[in-house]
Amino acid sequence: MIPNEKEWSKSEKKIARHAYKAAYNRECKAILEDVRKMAAEIEDSTGLWKLHDYLTEKREETDEKYDYRYSVLRFVFARLICEGWMHREDLEGISEDKLQEM
Amino acid sequence: MIPNEKEWSKSEKKIARHAYKAAYNRECKAILEDVRKMAAEIEDSTGLWKLHDYLTEKREETDEKYDYRYSVLRFVFARLICEGWMHREDLEGISEDKLQEM
Repeated sequence: MIPNEKEWSKSEKKIARHAYKAAYNRECKAILEDVRKMAAEIEDSTGLWKLHDYLTEKREETDEKYDYRYSVLRFVFARLICEGWMHREDLEGISEDKLQEM
Repeated sequence: MIPNEKEWSKSEKKIARHAYKAAYNRECKAILEDVRKMAAEIEDSTGLWKLHDYLTEKREETDEKYDYRYSVLRFVFARLICEGWMHREDLEGISEDKLQEM
């Protein structure tokens, strides 16, 4: 059964939204750290456009990854947990059946 | 008359190529300085993607601007001088008729 918005209680939605934002902010912070490191080490135009390529790739990747539709949210969260951007403790309060699928 | 490659002597070509590269490097260096400054001041994801937008814009702008075809070189050089990326002294040795058009 595909989960939909109605299956999420009001409090679950609040927890989910908070965890989602925290994961997004963690990932953006890590990208920013990479950018600062790369920018400090750039020596020529090749390095400058490599930094642009890196940011283009990360923007496309995060745009695709961070999808808040309830129909796909369990898969999104599973991926974020697997990649380390979301922590299981951020999801405390969400029903066990949903958590088991993540 | 549209100038073409044959109108440029071997030594003029060498000077032109050197001046062109120097201008490109100056402009890239200025972009890099902006990037480092922006990266240091970024506070959130909005700032991160603004930096990406800035780099996209600058890459498109430089790709369009730095055109080494001899048929357009005087116009390219005139623009680079006007914008401050190329210095007239970089072009010493290039014939007066070409310089007058820049």
